Amino acid sequence: MADYEHILVDTDGDTARITMNRPARRNSLSAEHLTELLHAVRAVSDTHATGIVLAGNGPVFSAGHDFGDVSARDLLGVRELLTLCTELMHAIQLAPQVVIARVHGLATAAGCQLVASCDLAVAAESAGFALPGGKGGWFCHTPAVPVARSVGRKRLMELALTGDPIDARTAEQWGLVNQVVPDEELDKAVDHLLTRATRGSRASKALGKRTLYAQLDRPEADAYAVALEVMAAASQIPDAKEGMAAFLAKRPPLWTD
Amino acid sequence: MADYEHILVDTDGDTARITMNRPARRNSLSAEHLTELLHAVRAVSDTHATGIVLAGNGPVFSAGHDFGDVSARDLLGVRELLTLCTELMHAIQLAPQVVIARVHGLATAAGCQLVASCDLAVAAESAGFALPGGKGGWFCHTPAVPVARSVGRKRLMELALTGDPIDARTAEQWGLVNQVVPDEELDKAVDHLLTRATRGSRASKALGKRTLYAQLDRPEADAYAVALEVMAAASQIPDAKEGMAAFLAKRPPLWTD
Amino acid sequence: MADYEHILVDTDGDTARITMNRPARRNSLSAEHLTELLHAVRAVSDTHATGIVLAGNGPVFSAGHDFGDVSARDLLGVRELLTLCTELMHAIQLAPQVVIARVHGLATAAGCQLVASCDLAVAAESAGFALPGGKGGWFCHTPAVPVARSVGRKRLMELALTGDPIDARTAEQWGLVNQVVPDEELDKAVDHLLTRATRGSRASKALGKRTLYAQLDRPEADAYAVALEVMAAASQIPDAKEGMAAFLAKRPPLWTD
Repeated sequence: MADYEHILVDTDGDTARITMNRPARRNSLSAEHLTELLHAVRAVSDTHATGIVLAGNGPVFSAGHDFGDVSARDLLGVRELLTLCTELMHAIQLAPQVVIARVHGLATAAGCQLVASCDLAVAAESAGFALPGGKGGWFCHTPAVPVARSVGRKRLMELALTGDPIDARTAEQWGLVNQVVPDEELDKAVDHLLTRATRGSRASKALGKRTLYAQLDRPEADAYAVALEVMAAASQIPDAKEGMAAFLAKRPPLWTD
Repeated sequence: MADYEHILVDTDGDTARITMNRPARRNSLSAEHLTELLHAVRAVSDTHATGIVLAGNGPVFSAGHDFGDVSARDLLGVRELLTLCTELMHAIQLAPQVVIARVHGLATAAGCQLVASCDLAVAAESAGFALPGGKGGWFCHTPAVPVARSVGRKRLMELALTGDPIDARTAEQWGLVNQVVPDEELDKAVDHLLTRATRGSRASKALGKRTLYAQLDRPEADAYAVALEVMAAASQIPDAKEGMAAFLAKRPPLWTD
Repeated sequence: MADYEHILVDTDGDTARITMNRPARRNSLSAEHLTELLHAVRAVSDTHATGIVLAGNGPVFSAGHDFGDVSARDLLGVRELLTLCTELMHAIQLAPQVVIARVHGLATAAGCQLVASCDLAVAAESAGFALPGGKGGWFCHTPAVPVARSVGRKRLMELALTGDPIDARTAEQWGLVNQVVPDEELDKAVDHLLTRATRGSRASKALGKRTLYAQLDRPEADAYAVALEVMAAASQIPDAKEGMAAFLAKRPPLWTD
């Protein structure tokens, strides 16, 4: 495992845990922090882990970009930082693993973007979510991209324009997180949902996840054009044949991949 | 009416009822079954019926593809099957009739796709919905296409990645079905919603339904480019003129089409 | 301020209030009425107001197009009317101000479209929302465009195909409005949400709002392509630098724009 300064990475069975570990800086996403997160997600992507838990240590999940870092940069410098940030969001969606956000506290700006970009998210009751740029001087343009694809339009506008946080129950109702639980049950709930989401063939699921992101946000006919070809091809992989054979023989399947 | 083996088709006033009738096979969608459904939807499309109820006999609504059928096919064979399945989903949306799913039991994989592809859906409390490929070896790539366009992204991911069923109340809350009612009130609720949805000019509504599907999932300006031209043209059809004249004269309209 | 016949425009601090004022005609949107609304939105857009409240006098919010006006028009005439209507919806989204709908009564057809097109909406409990063309002879093709982008697909179909109104609580649950309050608290709630939504730098927010509408309804990668460039550039405007400097110095920011 690489030598990280800003994050902790450990492996627990088939699950990799990536934990933002700059509590004193509210897990703000400096270029160095983003680089480590991107490296870790890519490194785990190449392993046989089936799930990734993205968590944060300290009082908040993540406060987003580090203004100390941003304010020192010129246009090209900020562009570089945001490109890195966008690559991280993309890497999470490209990972063959199921990525779940474990949100124990406030997730703001790019921190909220991280939650929206993970495949799944479970929040503690004391968590909160905000796009605070709306009440400042630097609007949350890129964080709003995955948030807009998780909640309805009027709710996006409320989050983005007011900059005010919503609580965890509201986030669940709006579809930004899958589940909200009492704080002390957070780890159990994360593990339970991840266990349910990582069953089955790893190869089949990796292809499935990638195809989901490929077909989203397109006219339905375009989405079918992608999904149909992948699903036909996917029927011929060994695990697909094994799954169907096992079902027909009423025996448990044995995945090879 | 054609001679069908897998389905029942009957007409009740202005409503055509298409019922999947392979209870012993959990209304699984073999190529033959899909071919009959496609034929029936297209045949009703050419009639003056105003509504179609899609239902299933037996313990489940539909279990999706028939693994006995799929596992015997090579890549081109599966591609053919999925093309047929996609044509059925498309035919439902192209039909000038309002198509409503009557979901009395479990709707899984392509069965869940059917529900998502109908214009409207009413579920009994004991119904359930799942994309079970997520916990198997063959991911529900194409079923996820219309489901992704009905529920939010995090909820899609939960359905698609876990493979676990959600109950009818959850499906209603997530927007996958319009309404959930006690089992014994299912037929009444289906009829009531269909009656409300089939009032007015048949010609106007057929054009309306087609334009809705044409404008969805596109940038708003593209959607307006379609909808504006259709709406202008639609103002000149006899039923549009009759509707406005009747409104202005405070008399009931008489639709000619 | 221009001399209007169909609307009232007044300014209250940083807020412009545009009020449809044809109660006897249920604030129906004749070409003249639409022209005045479009003029007013554009005129306010050029001022330093930070918010626009769109309201209606009389028993309803707006009944949509005026059938007396429409029925007298040929195809090109209706096309012209709908183009004007679409320009108004577009002008609301292009305005640098936050536009909030104050919905005190029924909002139907193009009236419902107006609510869906505003950035935010607060409704009184006695408000209602409908796309009534579905039960008539002229389908609500263009009103369905922004409504489809606010509520889920099955709910859109129910609204558009049945033509029946939904109540304010349902509209809130479906995401068509941000908030529902008792009738007597409507003004207070509108002001409160607008105050929250208009804090921060006006220049930053105007760019933010425009970028939100530019990135919606597109594949995520396309949305990032827009949002990333804007966000990088936006980091260099004076208010962005001031916001970060103030945050780092733990002092209140002073916006210059």
